[in-house]
Amino acid sequence: MPQRIRPGEVAIDLPATFDAGLYFIGRIHTPWARREDCPKNGADSDAVCTIEVDERYAAGLRDIESVSHLIVLYFMDEAPRDVMLQAPRHYRRPHGAFALRSPARPNPIACSIVRLVAVAERRLDVIGLDCRDGTPLIDIKPYFASIDAVPEATVGWHVDERDS
Amino acid sequence: MPQRIRPGEVAIDLPATFDAGLYFIGRIHTPWARREDCPKNGADSDAVCTIEVDERYAAGLRDIESVSHLIVLYFMDEAPRDVMLQAPRHYRRPHGAFALRSPARPNPIACSIVRLVAVAERRLDVIGLDCRDGTPLIDIKPYFASIDAVPEATVGWHVDERDS
Repeated sequence: MPQRIRPGEVAIDLPATFDAGLYFIGRIHTPWARREDCPKNGADSDAVCTIEVDERYAAGLRDIESVSHLIVLYFMDEAPRDVMLQAPRHYRRPHGAFALRSPARPNPIACSIVRLVAVAERRLDVIGLDCRDGTPLIDIKPYFASIDAVPEATVGWHVDERDS
Repeated sequence: MPQRIRPGEVAIDLPATFDAGLYFIGRIHTPWARREDCPKNGADSDAVCTIEVDERYAAGLRDIESVSHLIVLYFMDEAPRDVMLQAPRHYRRPHGAFALRSPARPNPIACSIVRLVAVAERRLDVIGLDCRDGTPLIDIKPYFASIDAVPEATVGWHVDERDS
């Protein structure tokens, strides 16, 4: 359900067909029933969320309990896919979709880093998610600090517009 | 083209239909023509690779030049999607697909953190990729150290099996 375009935003025509397909491999259970209840990002919340992997894929979880942090990919199925220039209310001016972490993008796949706190069979309790209850799960990967942690990374436009 | 199953590996039957579709929004140009030429992970290489975003999505790049590091999602189109328990040659025993960064997973979407070194219109030069030349691009996101950098993260099974 595409949202209306705000002033300064630009939408495009999407291709008529997809190039590849995704399986929903499970669901994410969170305390937030609606999109507007969700925290702005997962780091803003200490809520424990539960990732439930479908039985079909359960063998893929072996050794996951030894991993401290996970990269979770999930499908933002309520997000519009055609808004390339976006004007979120909390920023001063429009930015490109690829310079934002907005769920609205051609492939609305969110990527969150979470801390794994418990594993019980196909259910993983994690801290650090921001999505609506029932969000479709796409993938889980182990987070390797050696390749994934870049503490010195900066987002210039964001620093310039930060209120605080 | 699925690879043969090695001893200790487990494959599953995948669903008959997909749940959602992906657009390929560009291509990644790298020095590696074949999968077997690629570095084991992007952090092992200083090669400059070029992400070329299709003209249709170009407006989504506004302000990207101010971002130091990007999260790049790309589609590993040669990877099998059905191998849930995997025995990579360089590890001692099989591990679940979700405990590995192997391209073989139900949704073969790789997630790499790269350093942005130059932007020229729809072409982004980056360091830190590991994929075959021509790999389809799925998404680009800004890397925020505040939510994405976890230097203390550990992968227990990997520490146990590391040779060095």
